[in-house]
Order: sequence, then structure tokens, then C-alpha cells
Amino acid sequence: MLHAVVMAGGSGVRFWPLSRRARPKQFLPLAEPRSMLTVTAERCRPLIGRRQTWVVTNAAHAPLVAAMLPDLPAVNLLCEPCGRNTAACIGLAAVHVLRQDADAVLAVLPSDHAITPPEVFRDALARAAALVEASPQTSVLFGIKPTNPATGFGYIERGEVLTQANESTPPLSPLGRGEWGTDVLAFHVRRFHEKPSREVAEQFLASGSFYWNCGIFVWRASNVLRLLAEFQPEIHERVQRIATALGTTEADAVLQHEFPRMPAISIDHGVLEKASNVIVLEAPFEWDDVGSWQAFARWHDTDGDGNAVDGRHCGVDTHGCIVRSEPEHLVATIGVDDLIIVQTPDATLVARKDDENSIRRLVALLEVRGHGRFL
Amino acid sequence: MLHAVVMAGGSGVRFWPLSRRARPKQFLPLAEPRSMLTVTAERCRPLIGRRQTWVVTNAAHAPLVAAMLPDLPAVNLLCEPCGRNTAACIGLAAVHVLRQDADAVLAVLPSDHAITPPEVFRDALARAAALVEASPQTSVLFGIKPTNPATGFGYIERGEVLTQANESTPPLSPLGRGEWGTDVLAFHVRRFHEKPSREVAEQFLASGSFYWNCGIFVWRASNVLRLLAEFQPEIHERVQRIATALGTTEADAVLQHEFPRMPAISIDHGVLEKASNVIVLEAPFEWDDVGSWQAFARWHDTDGDGNAVDGRHCGVDTHGCIVRSEPEHLVATIGVDDLIIVQTPDATLVARKDDENSIRRLVALLEVRGHGRFL
Repeated sequence: MLHAVVMAGGSGVRFWPLSRRARPKQFLPLAEPRSMLTVTAERCRPLIGRRQTWVVTNAAHAPLVAAMLPDLPAVNLLCEPCGRNTAACIGLAAVHVLRQDADAVLAVLPSDHAITPPEVFRDALARAAALVEASPQTSVLFGIKPTNPATGFGYIERGEVLTQANESTPPLSPLGRGEWGTDVLAFHVRRFHEKPSREVAEQFLASGSFYWNCGIFVWRASNVLRLLAEFQPEIHERVQRIATALGTTEADAVLQHEFPRMPAISIDHGVLEKASNVIVLEAPFEWDDVGSWQAFARWHDTDGDGNAVDGRHCGVDTHGCIVRSEPEHLVATIGVDDLIIVQTPDATLVARKDDENSIRRLVALLEVRGHGRFL
Repeated sequence: MLHAVVMAGGSGVRFWPLSRRARPKQFLPLAEPRSMLTVTAERCRPLIGRRQTWVVTNAAHAPLVAAMLPDLPAVNLLCEPCGRNTAACIGLAAVHVLRQDADAVLAVLPSDHAITPPEVFRDALARAAALVEASPQTSVLFGIKPTNPATGFGYIERGEVLTQANESTPPLSPLGRGEWGTDVLAFHVRRFHEKPSREVAEQFLASGSFYWNCGIFVWRASNVLRLLAEFQPEIHERVQRIATALGTTEADAVLQHEFPRMPAISIDHGVLEKASNVIVLEAPFEWDDVGSWQAFARWHDTDGDGNAVDGRHCGVDTHGCIVRSEPEHLVATIGVDDLIIVQTPDATLVARKDDENSIRRLVALLEVRGHGRFL
């Protein structure tokens, strides 16, 4: 059966002051009126029901997850004692899911990306799952066709076309095969590439055979454990100890002991780059990692002066700004261009739009200057 | 006896969103931690006690005045049914004060100016009062020595020096005559000048015989009525009807009927420009009308990057900004220069510092766009 493993353990600061330590990006309504986590879980329905939906998050954020996904079964909410990157996260999820479903196929999903339309996404997931069902040792990734020489993503270099991709997967989509089915391109993965320099990214873009790695993986839970055993034996060993203790009174103590001791490594770097039988499907859906306020702006309407507004704004001689406010708060501007203005109940940011990376510097400064309670 | 008539009927928008219709400038702590009104009343103490302190305000703002001046006797809080400029305001105050003190001398004071140091101000007031005591038909104004060719003030052109000014007034100041007494210059007023053009203002500044009219007047209450009778007979007549009704059950009805029917004219234009025996004292105190956010900035410390902050601010690459926030709210900035940022609980302004006059345009726009509740 197909399960969703939603990874909600992130803790970024790029959306400060909207994102906070207590409320990272995935819990914010950045691209749609509901939180990215909620939208991520609901995007999979009805293909993946609530009992097959699993969320892995930091223990501190568990109450927030439970509030945002009120119909999620409590046993499906998995708490990491601390962040240990994605290999440990997915290993933990795999042993939990396997206890319920020995044949489980996992769709591992970041909780903080925007994807549309949902029906095309579900179709693509179903197709990937069918591939994995047919070939249990296969790992499937989704690759995003690059639109620009981005340096912030890892790249997947495709190899030979997997000719049987379309033949082996039935047309599951309510849209019908004719809508997009013939366009789903599947390839063997030739190689993974780390975030490239601008020059290299331009070569990747020009070659036409590179994809952005969007961090969506479809594979059998048993295959995940097999690959961990092969390439990350320490993670595998500790995950197995956690698995053995599940359902006993020792479960939490074992988790607290084993999890923080796992190597912190990404599933891409620690497992998939080393694995064989890795397939990349060219994503037939629109994807955005909503990684910045500029990306946020793409998901909101702009007024006649090019201002993207989420909230309440009134501007005189104001152009190209990104304005976010609480629903009942008014942000007024006079004679300013290309600013990011983010109002929240206890903190407001005013930043030059092209200086967004300085948010990290600002966050460091806030700590130093004794404003840590605003983080 | 010397009484203070504090005029608190103003309703400006220059400090939006800090100032609102419900809370105009005089009720804000712009130059000091307490409201300008509170500071204005307290600046006169102990020279002028609470029973000799009178506040004229719009009826809508009476509760605010009472809250800010809790020891003000209720009878000393005078409510205008509507704004009718300063001649009507001062006429109303004069008849109220005269009921208590037939020999009253009035120090008419705007409620929204910053003046320091208070002891020098009180000394100057006492000196002006002594002049008026000695010469009951004299009206005394304070003139501010211009520091720049400002076009936003009326000017007072001085005539002959009043040689007896210093001899006729005893050294009332605790600072002693030596501190400043010999520097108090008194002149007959030659002429009043409306707000001038830049060129004319430059001539005024260069000539050395012009002062800014800061709207502070010292005169007998009986003299005020005499001058109103002579130059503004309609105001005088209606004010007398209000006076006659004082203490009767008709008082409020008469006020409501007469006050709105008075011509709306300033005391300067309507009375003082036409009067004789008008003396200008060169103000020995520092004076600022705090007429803009730029002026606000002068009353607050600047950090090493030239940012004037009233509240909580943390900036990266931020220079020359004026930042105001609620005490517990953090305003963070990145890569911005010369902005005015004003955060309040329900509205935030971000404006270019040199574009401040556009606040009027903004306020008009807020009304048009249905944001009137933020005004």
C-alpha cells in the first residue's frame, strides 16, 4: 500500500519574522491560505488516506502538527528527539510503517514545498508507486525540469530512458493518459550533483539532461532498510533497535538513546547516490520550494504597481514591494520601491528585496543583541 | 493671578499612524516619555498650579485629557463642541477664567510643542506676566529666533526695543538675573507676517529682526475680551452669551448653540495683528513645534548609524532611519536607508524620509480605499 512520509522537521529562518523557532516554515500558510504542512498532507488525498499518512517532526512541534492535521492518527505522528537529517528521519519512518504494512511503499515528501495541480501530483505519485510495486528494489525520485541556473538545489543527471515506464504503469489518472500520461518521462539516474556554481548550473541547464532534486522519493519501506543496511549500517542498526522496542514500555527510552547517536546525513548523499536501480521521473507538476520572500511573492497576486500583498496594504508611490501583514493590520507605504515588509504581532521586518540573504545575518545579530525571544 | 490656557483642540495627521483622529499629536509622547499635553501642563508648575490650569479641547477628547491630567479640576476642562480656531477657543477660556478670577492673566499655550528647559520657560512666562500686570492693555507674545528660513511658521517683525522691559520686571528666576535675565529682549511688534515663501523667509532670517510666532501669548483675560469686542464683535457677543449662561442649566445648550456659529479665525489674524500695545519677548528657551517625524527624530538619540529610535530596533546595513515601535515590538531592518518606520498595534507606516508631506496624500487614500477606521 502507498504511504506518505511527510518530513516536517525543518527549522529555517529565511521567513523570519513570519517563521520562528517555535513555528518553522512548514507550519506557515506561505503559498496558500492553509499551512504548507496541511496542504502537503491534503494534496495526497484521496490517493493516500489519513491512516497511511505519517508525519515526522521535532518533538517540540508535535502539538502544532496535531493541531494542523486533526484527523492524523496519534501513532502516525513520529517525533524526532533532535534533528539528524533525512536518512535517520526516513529510517525511523520506515520501521514504524513496516509494523503496520510489511509491503508498504513510501512516498517521502518534504512538508514545505508548493506543488500544483494536486491531481497531476497524485497521478505522478501513483505512477511512481506502480513502478516500485513492479520492481521492489527500485527507488524513484522526481526531477524538476530547471527553468533557470539555480545554485540552491542539488541536480540529478539522467541516463538512459526507462522505456518500459509508461507501458508498465496503467493510466491511473482521472485525467486520463492522453492528458499527460505520454509525457511522463522516466530515466535511469546517471549521477547526483551537489549544489553547483553558477557556471556549472548554466551548463546543466543548457544540456537538457539535468533535473533539480526536489527531495520526493518513492520506494518500498523494506528497500529503504535494505539500502540503509548496505550504505548506512550504523543508522540501520540503531533504527532496528528502535523497531524492536516499538510497542514495549522501552520504546521511548530506546528512541531517546539511539536517535541522537545516528550520523546526521542526508538520504541523497548517504544512500541514493550510492544505490543502483534509481529512477528519476520528470515531474509533470509545477513545483516551487518557496525558499524566499521572492518565491512567496510568486504565490500572491500583484497590484497595478507590482506589489505582492498578503494582508492589508495601502501605498502611495510604492512599487515592486512584497507586503505581508496580519489580516487586521494595515501596512501603509510612501515613496518606497522593492522592499520586503513583513508585519507580525510582535516583530516587523523591513528589508531591501535584493538583500534577502542578510536575513541570516540579522538573525545572528538578534541573538547577539539580546532579542533572542523574537527568534 | 497667572493662569495657563492650554489649547488642545488640534487634530493633525502628520504623525499617522501614531496620531489618529481619536488621539491627535498633543496626546502623544513625541518628545518625552509622557504626552505633549501632560508635559505642557507640568512645565508650568509650580508657577501655575492645577487650579489655574485650563485645557480647551474637543469634546471627543475630554476623557483623554482627564486621564492624562488626573489632578485637573473638572471645571477647568473646557470642551469645544467643534473646532473654531484659536480666537473662539481663547474667548471661551477667557470667560471661564474670569468667573473665578477677575484679574486673571492668561498664558495661552499650544499643547503640542516641545520647550526646554522648563525653569527658563517659567521664568520667561513670569516676566511676561509681570509686564502685563504692570500694563493691563499689553499683549505679550514670545518670538523664537529663527535658525533657518522656515516657511511653515508665521513671523513677527520686531520694532523698537522696549527699554523698560528688564527694569520693570523683577528677577523672578531661580537661575538669577545673571543667568539669562539681561538677555531677555523685549520689543514692540512692528508687523505680523503670514507663512512666507522661501525667498522671503531667507530675507527675514538675514535681517535679524524677525521671529517665528510660536503661538504663546500672555495677556489679561479682560484684555482678551476687550480686544475681541473691538476686532471680532461676533465672537465677543457669542462668548458673552456663553458667559451669561455659565452656572445655569442652560450653559451647555447655549455653548452648543453659540460656539459652532462663531467665525473660525485665528487669534493672531483676527485680533493681535490689529491690536496695539503688542510686545514680543525673544524666547530665552529652546522651542520646537515637533511638526514632523524629522523633528521627532531630533528628540531621540541616534545610534552609530544615524538611526533615531523610539522603541526596539535591530538593523543590518541600516542608516539614517527613524524607527518608532510599541515597547514590546521589534522592528528589524536590512539594507535600508533614510526610511521612516512607525509601528503601532493596528497599522504600520514605511515611508521615505524626504517624502513626508505625502502622509496627507496617504491619509486621503486610506479614506478612499475604505481604510477609514485606521485614521
